[in-house]
Amino acid sequence: MRLYIGLVHYPVYNKNREKIASAITNFDLHDLSRLARTYGARRLFIITPLSNQHKLAERISEHWTSGYGASYNVHRKEALEVIRVVDSLEVAVNAVSDAESGRPLLIATDASRQVERSIDYQRTREVLASERAVFLLFGTAWGLHEDALKMCDFILDPVEGETDYNHLSVRTAAGIILDRLAGRYQ
Amino acid sequence: MRLYIGLVHYPVYNKNREKIASAITNFDLHDLSRLARTYGARRLFIITPLSNQHKLAERISEHWTSGYGASYNVHRKEALEVIRVVDSLEVAVNAVSDAESGRPLLIATDASRQVERSIDYQRTREVLASERAVFLLFGTAWGLHEDALKMCDFILDPVEGETDYNHLSVRTAAGIILDRLAGRYQ
Repeated sequence: MRLYIGLVHYPVYNKNREKIASAITNFDLHDLSRLARTYGARRLFIITPLSNQHKLAERISEHWTSGYGASYNVHRKEALEVIRVVDSLEVAVNAVSDAESGRPLLIATDASRQVERSIDYQRTREVLASERAVFLLFGTAWGLHEDALKMCDFILDPVEGETDYNHLSVRTAAGIILDRLAGRYQ
Repeated sequence: MRLYIGLVHYPVYNKNREKIASAITNFDLHDLSRLARTYGARRLFIITPLSNQHKLAERISEHWTSGYGASYNVHRKEALEVIRVVDSLEVAVNAVSDAESGRPLLIATDASRQVERSIDYQRTREVLASERAVFLLFGTAWGLHEDALKMCDFILDPVEGETDYNHLSVRTAAGIILDRLAGRYQ
């Protein structure tokens, strides 16, 4: 499986549908890196143009990968090593393209069901099983901005539960989606 | 579906396999209440004997259900209303028994595969579909203490991904497990 994950802090929407750069959240880095590691994703890109946010992400990451935390909790070290902090979506796509010798299939996640370019879980599993490289994008704040969606080849069907309530955190939604795409169980 | 969820802060293990009461985490309350609401769980019990932790959980909950947050973000209000903070696992089980006029099936989650009393996802889905009340327990910190596991009828198979790495956060694991038990998708 050649799966890459991107957590996008820019461009995303805020509550008022304005384009913003959101702040990095410590819990996102831990939860998503542990998730990436569990399901065998090759890299987790943290995407933000803000240089102070780069420093924050790197400080957290270094604490657990080479600082005191590395010996305190080896599982966190193992997980956080999967992280790369980059300036933009374009830089992340280029990094995946270089590693895989070709552009990956870019799939966005979104809480709304799409009319165009939608892809379901079964089809995405098949793409992953075919060893095509896939770069799966998650938006923070109120979700991926249209400018990010436009760059993507497909938009994955939303997670829908038992009810019409559909406001999962990115940490929870990412877990559900990775399990649907790469989980094995009975 | 008659599903109840419990987030157990006592009794759980710490890193050194000692029995402790863990601290409440703001992110757990938000992520798990939104998850419970999405999948139609009837109640999320936050289980801790520490009175200062009760106050903390209630302050967070009140901010979003009747304070400024209730008008700022109605989706959080809707989610957090599913929470009840209780002193012990026994109190939570009694509350579910009263609401459902009978003791629920008590199912623990654990990161290790069990030799005895294990139950798989398919069987648990069938139990839920049969309208039997189920109370699903998640441990914080290093997982549910043996004293809590002993009270349970079954222990759900662990979440396993593509790799042998198995250290998901409770927020992510709970999302994956609820989707496996109550999700619908293709």
